Amino acid sequence: MDDCIFCKIVKGEIPCQKIGENRDFLCFLDIKPINEGHSLIVPKRHFRDISDFPEELERGYFAFVQEMARKIVPAVKADGFNLGMNNGRAAGQLVMHQHTHLIPRFNGDSLAAWPHKEVTNEDLERTKNKILGKHK
Amino acid sequence: MDDCIFCKIVKGEIPCQKIGENRDFLCFLDIKPINEGHSLIVPKRHFRDISDFPEELERGYFAFVQEMARKIVPAVKADGFNLGMNNGRAAGQLVMHQHTHLIPRFNGDSLAAWPHKEVTNEDLERTKNKILGKHK
Repeated sequence: MDDCIFCKIVKGEIPCQKIGENRDFLCFLDIKPINEGHSLIVPKRHFRDISDFPEELERGYFAFVQEMARKIVPAVKADGFNLGMNNGRAAGQLVMHQHTHLIPRFNGDSLAAWPHKEVTNEDLERTKNKILGKHK
Repeated sequence: MDDCIFCKIVKGEIPCQKIGENRDFLCFLDIKPINEGHSLIVPKRHFRDISDFPEELERGYFAFVQEMARKIVPAVKADGFNLGMNNGRAAGQLVMHQHTHLIPRFNGDSLAAWPHKEVTNEDLERTKNKILGKHK
């Protein structure tokens, strides 16, 4: 898409710090990293979010993510990593071209997990019934 | 694995609030939800994390995640959703059986994004060279 910043990066019209690529995907460093080595894995073809993830890209996706993780995680001496996909603005998606965040994690890096809610079994049951379309 | 809580849930030895399943995957509500509808998507076969994700499961994974998102997100009236996979304890992985968090998000739900670091182009260049094995 003409006005998509990731499409422009894919086409080479905007520079990036490229970590790897294959026919279908590109991986480059996030310019505002949460931790060192924070990278974005971007399909070269434009689509908006996971809801539109094309079936023919599925098989290559994990292989590419694994390959990038094997390069990035030991290089920055990380102890683990998060993969995250934000779907929609309410979920923090800023660029409307689907992408996966690969965030290296370090023991004691003090990135806080989101707080859990305390719920009862009845609360969970009610939510399940809402999702499954069952109403008591 | 004998002592794996998710293997026990898959086998029905521990109950769960099931949202959906197919041959390869099970989806159930997280008992400590971050938001209503927070669910876990778990491969039935035991493996540890994304590094071990078996090739034969790749094609079915996104189709199943999309199917679950289409059920969950409108049912709880969410505005978006996050998908997250934590790889390793440093990344917040608590159960060592690979799983994806599907977290419905609501406009203004005030779950804070992790803080970014301000870095220069030179910092990014240095990180890239570290990852690509280039040293000046």
